[in-house]
Amino acid sequence: MSVRAAVVGAAGYIGGELLRLLLLHPRVDLVAVTSVRRAGRRVDGCHPNLRGLTDLRFTSPADLDDEYDVVFLATPHGETMTGLAQYTSRAGLLIDLSADFRLRDPAVFRSHYGVEHAAPGELDSFVYGLPELHRGELRGADRIAVPGCMAAAAILALHPLAAGDAITGRVVVDARTGSSGAGAAAGQTNLHAERSGALRVFAPVGHRHEAEIGQAIGRPVSMTATGVEAVRGVQVVCHVTLRDGVDDVVLRGLYRQHYRDERFVRVVAARRGNYRLPEPKILAGSNYCDVGFATGTASGAAPTAAVAVGALDNLMKGGAGNAVQCMNLRLGWPESLGLEFPGLHPS
Amino acid sequence: MSVRAAVVGAAGYIGGELLRLLLLHPRVDLVAVTSVRRAGRRVDGCHPNLRGLTDLRFTSPADLDDEYDVVFLATPHGETMTGLAQYTSRAGLLIDLSADFRLRDPAVFRSHYGVEHAAPGELDSFVYGLPELHRGELRGADRIAVPGCMAAAAILALHPLAAGDAITGRVVVDARTGSSGAGAAAGQTNLHAERSGALRVFAPVGHRHEAEIGQAIGRPVSMTATGVEAVRGVQVVCHVTLRDGVDDVVLRGLYRQHYRDERFVRVVAARRGNYRLPEPKILAGSNYCDVGFATGTASGAAPTAAVAVGALDNLMKGGAGNAVQCMNLRLGWPESLGLEFPGLHPS
Amino acid sequence: MSVRAAVVGAAGYIGGELLRLLLLHPRVDLVAVTSVRRAGRRVDGCHPNLRGLTDLRFTSPADLDDEYDVVFLATPHGETMTGLAQYTSRAGLLIDLSADFRLRDPAVFRSHYGVEHAAPGELDSFVYGLPELHRGELRGADRIAVPGCMAAAAILALHPLAAGDAITGRVVVDARTGSSGAGAAAGQTNLHAERSGALRVFAPVGHRHEAEIGQAIGRPVSMTATGVEAVRGVQVVCHVTLRDGVDDVVLRGLYRQHYRDERFVRVVAARRGNYRLPEPKILAGSNYCDVGFATGTASGAAPTAAVAVGALDNLMKGGAGNAVQCMNLRLGWPESLGLEFPGLHPS
Amino acid sequence: MSVRAAVVGAAGYIGGELLRLLLLHPRVDLVAVTSVRRAGRRVDGCHPNLRGLTDLRFTSPADLDDEYDVVFLATPHGETMTGLAQYTSRAGLLIDLSADFRLRDPAVFRSHYGVEHAAPGELDSFVYGLPELHRGELRGADRIAVPGCMAAAAILALHPLAAGDAITGRVVVDARTGSSGAGAAAGQTNLHAERSGALRVFAPVGHRHEAEIGQAIGRPVSMTATGVEAVRGVQVVCHVTLRDGVDDVVLRGLYRQHYRDERFVRVVAARRGNYRLPEPKILAGSNYCDVGFATGTASGAAPTAAVAVGALDNLMKGGAGNAVQCMNLRLGWPESLGLEFPGLHPS
Repeated sequence: MSVRAAVVGAAGYIGGELLRLLLLHPRVDLVAVTSVRRAGRRVDGCHPNLRGLTDLRFTSPADLDDEYDVVFLATPHGETMTGLAQYTSRAGLLIDLSADFRLRDPAVFRSHYGVEHAAPGELDSFVYGLPELHRGELRGADRIAVPGCMAAAAILALHPLAAGDAITGRVVVDARTGSSGAGAAAGQTNLHAERSGALRVFAPVGHRHEAEIGQAIGRPVSMTATGVEAVRGVQVVCHVTLRDGVDDVVLRGLYRQHYRDERFVRVVAARRGNYRLPEPKILAGSNYCDVGFATGTASGAAPTAAVAVGALDNLMKGGAGNAVQCMNLRLGWPESLGLEFPGLHPS
Repeated sequence: MSVRAAVVGAAGYIGGELLRLLLLHPRVDLVAVTSVRRAGRRVDGCHPNLRGLTDLRFTSPADLDDEYDVVFLATPHGETMTGLAQYTSRAGLLIDLSADFRLRDPAVFRSHYGVEHAAPGELDSFVYGLPELHRGELRGADRIAVPGCMAAAAILALHPLAAGDAITGRVVVDARTGSSGAGAAAGQTNLHAERSGALRVFAPVGHRHEAEIGQAIGRPVSMTATGVEAVRGVQVVCHVTLRDGVDDVVLRGLYRQHYRDERFVRVVAARRGNYRLPEPKILAGSNYCDVGFATGTASGAAPTAAVAVGALDNLMKGGAGNAVQCMNLRLGWPESLGLEFPGLHPS
Repeated sequence: MSVRAAVVGAAGYIGGELLRLLLLHPRVDLVAVTSVRRAGRRVDGCHPNLRGLTDLRFTSPADLDDEYDVVFLATPHGETMTGLAQYTSRAGLLIDLSADFRLRDPAVFRSHYGVEHAAPGELDSFVYGLPELHRGELRGADRIAVPGCMAAAAILALHPLAAGDAITGRVVVDARTGSSGAGAAAGQTNLHAERSGALRVFAPVGHRHEAEIGQAIGRPVSMTATGVEAVRGVQVVCHVTLRDGVDDVVLRGLYRQHYRDERFVRVVAARRGNYRLPEPKILAGSNYCDVGFATGTASGAAPTAAVAVGALDNLMKGGAGNAVQCMNLRLGWPESLGLEFPGLHPS
Repeated sequence: MSVRAAVVGAAGYIGGELLRLLLLHPRVDLVAVTSVRRAGRRVDGCHPNLRGLTDLRFTSPADLDDEYDVVFLATPHGETMTGLAQYTSRAGLLIDLSADFRLRDPAVFRSHYGVEHAAPGELDSFVYGLPELHRGELRGADRIAVPGCMAAAAILALHPLAAGDAITGRVVVDARTGSSGAGAAAGQTNLHAERSGALRVFAPVGHRHEAEIGQAIGRPVSMTATGVEAVRGVQVVCHVTLRDGVDDVVLRGLYRQHYRDERFVRVVAARRGNYRLPEPKILAGSNYCDVGFATGTASGAAPTAAVAVGALDNLMKGGAGNAVQCMNLRLGWPESLGLEFPGLHPS
């Protein structure tokens, strides 16, 4: 009663995380994993945490000549939109982890990715893969576009505020990310001696995920992204202006109402301790997105300010874990199947 | 069909790891968790990774007035040997994670811990909790003493060589450990600004685990311990002198033979890649102890030298995970029950 | 021709940094260093980097019975304002590194520090110790209040924009800080296993430095502070809204004009490389504050957004180094005397 | 009265450190810095800590058509021995930081570097650049071969023991190194996500520096090298067997006698504190090599064991700093000229 799954682009970090999850998933048979550069080699050669779990080897994408119940695409941005046809024919369910089909508007895509979309007519055929916002549509989806890691954190942190009409004006999203978000390809940018201990404001304005966030929450967004000393982990600190009358109690109510029944979103806004607000450090390997908030008055300013904070593991709820959650949802299984690992403390 | 378990000393790092494992264990009902200082408070207050998993609160050890199938003692060294009676009466199976009952010889205990043993007559009533060496005895044990983290890594790395009579002379064990091994009590020693980036040779000679290693492998041991920049993780590099005729092929044979059927020991001695030898970085949260080796000739020296390397997560195979494996074994369950998490890469 | 200097509170991290600078300063004789808890012990016992540089020992503050040309106060917040008299009588020049005399308005002090100011009548007797803004006054000052570390970075990053009337509305300051900013006192908060790898939003709103920034730039400020994985280093990312007509060229002009002749402020806004914007990683031990900026348009929003970035070593330009620069300025010496170390790369 | 200096291979990490030291050296005029790949570009483009210190640009090595008082070669291993003639003709003093001329015996070179030496007849024309062992020869040297970073630490830690005939048998050197030791070239090996938090035993046996150590101390050596989480820093833990009658008092005496007058070697063997033994964390940017020791008895073993520990900054005393110290010595200047920075704490 298992489904047959394939992962395309399985030698990268998102790909490796998919392998870890799918190999241990009780209802999935992982039958094909591809890598252009590593075809023929064992998967545990580049994913050493899988030693002892599998003898699988990468194949070439060209050898994907079968049909699969689910195909995950963990390929570089741009490949899904140009090669969509070949995957569609083989896959009952297509789950794309690239950025190609996250945006609805080809003009927004162009302005943020600097190229024309290669398949604008297909944009509407994908459902945005965030179960907390699109559960209904995902239940019937055959094509799913998994959100960007920083976008997912920001959207989940901001959604209760936007949906509850609690904020006004521009939202400032300050995102911080570990080095695995940049992928497994080596370069001067990711050299340990350069990247270690960094606080690198690599996208001071206009990060691509800005467009996803704006699309989801319907407000103007200014996003800054900084690379911090971490391998895994994303945190967003969102600065918002509250509407008159919105206070701590209102906010707490909104968060609770939105996420009361969500398995993978925890509202974290404690009064004491080291972990009062969402912190990616305790989320590595887990599929949680923790969200929280705090309110205050800007010194000398009339409008009340608040911050909404979100945190997740970029390879999990920000990528592979969220993709598996979408698959579980689509196939009618419990959403948490194969995603039970709660994260470590300390770590 | 579940067993009822209690954890004493559950607010520490080993205690927290036990909670994580037992709360998700399919055959365990965690019914009591104690902490002297945190009695009455929620467990997820100090173990934030358990948020959403449990509403448990710590109780005072004095409130442990029931009977339990299994009691885990994650108390400071010295408490088990003075309070043994009170726990014995309540527990079908007692699993002690302190150092009190790891050594067989009270004189060795005295020389390494600087105090007289408080219950020398009970030393033989405990079985040393390393399934790979003592599986038979553990099947019938009612009291189990879980090995020290660095000792476990060194013993598993050296055992095939010692048991196979492949080495001669003194063994030099160079151990490296993350900061969680020092526990959750704050002090100048563990202050982040002092401990961060450290290479602190805190035990240049005579570390306590030296005695456990010597007891297990039956050879003289010199051990050095260094605190390195990590929260979790232990690695030992053991320098040995090989007997005549022992070479790479012999060693590989010994390791394979000893660990062929072990679920949690992987022989890692690859020819290429970043993870050619055991590396704790990919083991966080997993119950693996990876072991490996390499041979060579000392410059100018006749005898052939070799290094045996071991790595594990000090809170897992070096503590809580190993304790759960012992429980599984003792209760006739698959040893890996509740211990399936394979570790993350990258992390 | 040297001046005689004393450091009060010399066992802390700011105190230790003052010792390093003053021991190597060509015109300073360090004659007394005090510590309540370490009186009688060698200074290199707690500042191991000073081994071989000095045989000095801490004395008790009560033993400060002499007169000094300069007294540096690196004491906990609150001690200067209550003990001002005793220091004034002994010191030609008093340089306070605590927060007690940074704010002009006792009401603002009360609202940010939660207590009444103990010497409100003396607030105006201190000059705010930021040479780049107050060089003229500092030349004649006998009492200097050294800015907070995050405040210094934000003020230097924002000053050209505020003074040049280039921005409008509220300024959002997102500050990140290493663990040394929390001082040398051990606690659960700074335990390595808890603090390592953290992204701890410890002050989501209303951090105390917010008041200093607002006072200096004359605009409403919302500040968030996050502890990041670092020992030294502060970075601020300031989100601002530009006035009509203000663009990249205008901003570059403002920064250059303000800092053209500043020895310790570098304008860093490069088009490529890993270090395009200010990055504390390369500033450890140096007295630089690097400042930079980038502009962009918020998605869907009319007003143009910009970010101003500042970075410094919190113990140097954010504390001890800046204090020495103030002393140099006040005593008519080159401002960079004893502050020549440029920082390391890589590190 | 300044000397004219050139640095060949100035875009690497050792090269960058030389630039930092020479630009601030009071008696050096840095007139040429070369890089094959970066010719024409500003040096502060790849060494951002030099911003504001210099407007220098890299030139091509082919443009080195002048004569220089000192030429530093920070080129990849192999280039000095093949290109020696071209540099000799231009340089009064040649200081080579590669491995080409560190070993005296071409057979040992071959066995450790895997190639024939290209200029065996010139091996004796270089003096081994460790002032603490070869001060007399270095005063008259025209060619200096700067030791390897781990070799320098081990030799300085072991030299008093070997020269004092205090040890017997094989020496086991366990070396740990930061990532900058592997250079500035990017690759899968040094990718941040792979290298971060690593304990990578990259040379379990037979590291090249083993030969240098053996040559210097005249004993058989087994060396293991592990990459640890750090950018800068080398630490060696050397396991030795003491001769009969050698104890703590004898060892302390030997260390003190050998290093009493050494500016850059500190004997660190304290009884308490976090920094009881040499620790590279506090040495970044400094030219110190800290050395220390501890004695003990192996459990069950008759011979007394000891460990000798050494620590340094691999780019300083393990490279560029040591090279400048050699230059200072050769030119009759104080050895510490331009090398006064003492290191930071905390960091």
